[in-house]
Amino acid sequence: MFTSEEPTRFGISCLGSRLMAGSVELEGLLKKTVDGQNISFSDAAESAGYGNALHFSNVLLKKGSYSAFIELHIEQGPLLEEEAIPIGIVTAIAAPASIKVDFEGNGGHAGAVLMPKRNDAGLAAAELALAVEKHVLESGSMDTVGTVGILELHPGAVNSIPSKSHLDIDTRDIDEKRRNEVVEKIHESALSIAEKRNVKLSEFKIVNQDPPAQSDESITMATESACRHLNLNYKKMISRAYHDSLFMARVSPMGMIFIPCYKGYSHKPEEFSDIEDIANGVKVLALTLAKLSSLQP
Amino acid sequence: MFTSEEPTRFGISCLGSRLMAGSVELEGLLKKTVDGQNISFSDAAESAGYGNALHFSNVLLKKGSYSAFIELHIEQGPLLEEEAIPIGIVTAIAAPASIKVDFEGNGGHAGAVLMPKRNDAGLAAAELALAVEKHVLESGSMDTVGTVGILELHPGAVNSIPSKSHLDIDTRDIDEKRRNEVVEKIHESALSIAEKRNVKLSEFKIVNQDPPAQSDESITMATESACRHLNLNYKKMISRAYHDSLFMARVSPMGMIFIPCYKGYSHKPEEFSDIEDIANGVKVLALTLAKLSSLQP
Repeated sequence: MFTSEEPTRFGISCLGSRLMAGSVELEGLLKKTVDGQNISFSDAAESAGYGNALHFSNVLLKKGSYSAFIELHIEQGPLLEEEAIPIGIVTAIAAPASIKVDFEGNGGHAGAVLMPKRNDAGLAAAELALAVEKHVLESGSMDTVGTVGILELHPGAVNSIPSKSHLDIDTRDIDEKRRNEVVEKIHESALSIAEKRNVKLSEFKIVNQDPPAQSDESITMATESACRHLNLNYKKMISRAYHDSLFMARVSPMGMIFIPCYKGYSHKPEEFSDIEDIANGVKVLALTLAKLSSLQP
Repeated sequence: MFTSEEPTRFGISCLGSRLMAGSVELEGLLKKTVDGQNISFSDAAESAGYGNALHFSNVLLKKGSYSAFIELHIEQGPLLEEEAIPIGIVTAIAAPASIKVDFEGNGGHAGAVLMPKRNDAGLAAAELALAVEKHVLESGSMDTVGTVGILELHPGAVNSIPSKSHLDIDTRDIDEKRRNEVVEKIHESALSIAEKRNVKLSEFKIVNQDPPAQSDESITMATESACRHLNLNYKKMISRAYHDSLFMARVSPMGMIFIPCYKGYSHKPEEFSDIEDIANGVKVLALTLAKLSSLQP
């Protein structure tokens, strides 16, 4: 169990495992990161009893501390359920990137300012959201995804032209180079939209841009062996969502086990896995660990 | 002074003057309207000490109660300042309409759900916001304006595909028919976007769709006369923003006096008018009232 696996208060996923695996860029980023109430990460950590949290070296995990790191998770996608396969064995975790964007215009009264006089930060955000989708669809691969999960307008009143807008953009791919090209195209669109609409691109911050991770072959082989032993059908697959394992892979051989979930739903109230599927996952995890233990000197 | 001139808690502008001027549709709407915490209008009114607030007939103002209603206001536009004219005399108030729109999709995990499987309610909202701008620009008149001041995504997390989106749309024109055509086109776009993106258009509610109001000629003549008497230059103009006067015009002869404001800014912290301009406005208002009083039998 790691702290802050989901991006909640400070908007950075897998904060615990990222810090344990070490990240120089992350240290720099956290020194500038604040929550929705403008409280800094270090102030929040200190008031939670962590002392001076900016001594990140305290939490670093040395390479080789673990001989294997294995994570059991729901698939968060529909494939296992659709194909009625109880176990997924992850061979690689797709490479995520996330970006924060702010546009600023002059705002004004929704009735009084005529259209040619406007520089509407909200419409700039709407255009960029659609540009993200366009660039992702143009990548040429089904493995490229991109999402605008957060889009906020300021002041947020029916009779005010938005003077500020904020987007959080997420894009992922199993191919790091292709993912980076999408990030670059999103940046170019943000610049050209700002110019065309005469708004200021006041922030374009790449919050994280991580490489993909490969599972360790000795771990996937042990998991396959466990499935055969338990007489459970399995499927080798890509994890398109990322997990603490993406970061633990930097300091340890890594593997992941997936179980089916209802319609692939995740991050919403309908998220559900059958008790039988959960039990199968636990059995496969336990037997994989036992098999790997017996391989150790 | 009327209550709730700006659309705050219940999202309906000029609630006080609307109710005083009487509106059957508004009564029906308020019975269904809730605030951001799901508290109904009538519950809020009752807990504020208004008893059963749904007896709207109590606040109705009879036609002829006032011989004239005159409102002094900042222009909320840049013309008077640009042309260095101290007084605007309003000849008509543009016709406003506002619309609430909700889209619903399946949501899901931003990494795990591939692009062809998505029905992203947030992208539907982004497309509709840009369609509003397009329909307004295509109206053929500079007097048509349209604004998306509120655009909200649910659940609003960087790693979740939006499963719900909400927009508040505002559109106005001095020509009621042309304004109604824009509303109709926005509705058609909302339907076609929902179909194309396989999202549900779960709400398309026209919150208000008011006719324009003409100023009373005897009032504008009295204001012109007051300006000449005070040796103040003036300009006759349209009010593109609407005001309590739009509704008071239903029960009384109406007029409005505008003064310049800094860069036309309004509904933002930079809103500012010079003390000298404010004083001029007060003098013109006072003399207009005096002149109108002397006209009465």
